[in-house]
Amino acid sequence: MQPLVVDLGDRAYPIHVGSDLIGRSDLYAPHLAGLQVLVVTDATVADLHLDRVRRALGNREVASVVLAGGEADKTLDAVSRIVDVLVERRFNRSAAVVALGGGVVGDVAGFAAAVYQRGIRYIQVPTTLLAQVDSSVGGKTGVNHPRGKNLVGAFHQPVCVIADTGALATLSERELRAGLAEVIKYGVLWDAEFFDWIEANLDGLLARDEGLLARSVRRSCEIKAEVVSQDEREAGVRARLNLGHTFGHAIEAGMEYGHWLHGEAVAAGTCMAADLAARMNWISAADADRVQGLIRRAGLPDRGPAALSPDDFLRLMARDKKAVDGGIRLVLPRAIGDTVLTGDFDPRALAGTLEACRADIEPPFFD
Amino acid sequence: MQPLVVDLGDRAYPIHVGSDLIGRSDLYAPHLAGLQVLVVTDATVADLHLDRVRRALGNREVASVVLAGGEADKTLDAVSRIVDVLVERRFNRSAAVVALGGGVVGDVAGFAAAVYQRGIRYIQVPTTLLAQVDSSVGGKTGVNHPRGKNLVGAFHQPVCVIADTGALATLSERELRAGLAEVIKYGVLWDAEFFDWIEANLDGLLARDEGLLARSVRRSCEIKAEVVSQDEREAGVRARLNLGHTFGHAIEAGMEYGHWLHGEAVAAGTCMAADLAARMNWISAADADRVQGLIRRAGLPDRGPAALSPDDFLRLMARDKKAVDGGIRLVLPRAIGDTVLTGDFDPRALAGTLEACRADIEPPFFD
Repeated sequence: MQPLVVDLGDRAYPIHVGSDLIGRSDLYAPHLAGLQVLVVTDATVADLHLDRVRRALGNREVASVVLAGGEADKTLDAVSRIVDVLVERRFNRSAAVVALGGGVVGDVAGFAAAVYQRGIRYIQVPTTLLAQVDSSVGGKTGVNHPRGKNLVGAFHQPVCVIADTGALATLSERELRAGLAEVIKYGVLWDAEFFDWIEANLDGLLARDEGLLARSVRRSCEIKAEVVSQDEREAGVRARLNLGHTFGHAIEAGMEYGHWLHGEAVAAGTCMAADLAARMNWISAADADRVQGLIRRAGLPDRGPAALSPDDFLRLMARDKKAVDGGIRLVLPRAIGDTVLTGDFDPRALAGTLEACRADIEPPFFD
Repeated sequence: MQPLVVDLGDRAYPIHVGSDLIGRSDLYAPHLAGLQVLVVTDATVADLHLDRVRRALGNREVASVVLAGGEADKTLDAVSRIVDVLVERRFNRSAAVVALGGGVVGDVAGFAAAVYQRGIRYIQVPTTLLAQVDSSVGGKTGVNHPRGKNLVGAFHQPVCVIADTGALATLSERELRAGLAEVIKYGVLWDAEFFDWIEANLDGLLARDEGLLARSVRRSCEIKAEVVSQDEREAGVRARLNLGHTFGHAIEAGMEYGHWLHGEAVAAGTCMAADLAARMNWISAADADRVQGLIRRAGLPDRGPAALSPDDFLRLMARDKKAVDGGIRLVLPRAIGDTVLTGDFDPRALAGTLEACRADIEPPFFD
């Protein structure tokens, strides 16, 4: 199958989606100018896939850094560790980094590649559904600050994305569902037909039908590639991809990073955005119900934790990168398939949403 | 006087060169979209100029970070400190950083601006001759790694450069001369007429005639702006600006950062490059003598320290960012005013240069 392409001129790159791609040396080779490759991964993924990647890299000089795994890896210290290895091995400007793992590995390894020698190339090999449909595409890299998520980072596009849907077979149930949150997000923010398709095929997706998963990854990446090609630096339309994220980041930060998975927080945030839009009559109550219903069917939270008060939310949301001089801006649906970034919403409606969309819930959210 | 412009399309920016510019609020205002400004400086420069910058910024929300001063500030820890202040003050994406000081301040503050929220704007206000003629222009930012100079960084262009030649009056004699090394470098690498002009006006430059200093800053920035506009990411012609730097970085690293000033190491490196080129008959012995003679007249070292053996040099030079898969590449003159980046030089000639161009010398190098 033809790869998708993120069309960024001389920095355009392919996204390969399919089965059994991780070990395909022909997918790596065109993007490795030099002989030195550093594979960054985490302990779980290393056991499952590292050997296949090493074999695919052939007789190049391959080093690896294995992170512990989880959001706690997303620190400047982890970036320092990766850079230390690049320096110790005397990797030069034509060396490459391979980010093998979930979103955290991709963000940290990509940021290390962005700053080592002011930028070397890197290949994304996402192994979670969330990383395949979202974080591996688009060049956002970075780490968290104790006071906020993704506050330190860089835009640095990969030279290639290899999304092997076979890797999804070993994903935990919880991570699969967290990834589906982002898939559903694409339907809500961009493509009503895709939303219909997810509704119709959710059971098969949850049963890990690989053909259905591949279709959902491919369509999600198509949307992301289209948006990123239009607006690499998030000056405009790209902000729409952050549907559910301002609420979601507040949940992640307020509950301490890693307690809720990113996808779970985005699921709740998407439901809260739909609730707020319905309160202002931007979308119908029926459409808000459809969004929330699909998220519930996927075994994802349709509201935030009661542990966070409305004031907690407001305080945490004001720190969002999209906020301008203290004013919160939100991505809100105008319909299923259409969203807008705006600071122009009714604050009383937001207060209503923050009050109503709370529940005494704890991950995991499915039986 | 009209500012110079670094022509990078939608990221083009002006370079203002002249007297009494630091306090000119009209030079800052067009580049500050938001109300939040962080001034990064060092202790010495803060005493001399910080108040004027604060006044020029008017009633914006101004914070400052004062580094200790010197190459030891050029660490990831210093970047972390700056980011911590940006986070604590909740500075948003429309905030700006002002880098007030020498090359170290500019590199560290610029890198912090490059990575905070994946990039916010910054203004360079260079106060040393070296920073005015070189490091403040062109968007190279970064910090050192214990094992190598500038190994971590980013390309991130400033939105404006304000080079106040009045600031040069308080520069130490040693720093003035270190800056002249980079001025002489531009003559050798790009502009034979400018080299002639420096030869003719060196006494006035050393006597700090402000008109002559302003002319030397302006011509140096013109050359740098022209080169950077052609090749922002150093894929080609920009590498020529590194004349003397592969030798020079080896000296800086081998003698421990900060013992030799960057400009002093570049002066010695430029003389070594001229010596090597003369050994291969790329330039005449007379031209090599002119280069070395001008550098000596400026009270700068015309050779490296005897403490570094030729083997030390080779080991340190192989770590240079321009090296490719272990092979050293050097910027060498083909004439005064013309240079080339090449790996194609006679290794015996290099061995001869490394043996001959050593002396038992210690900074400072003038009486």
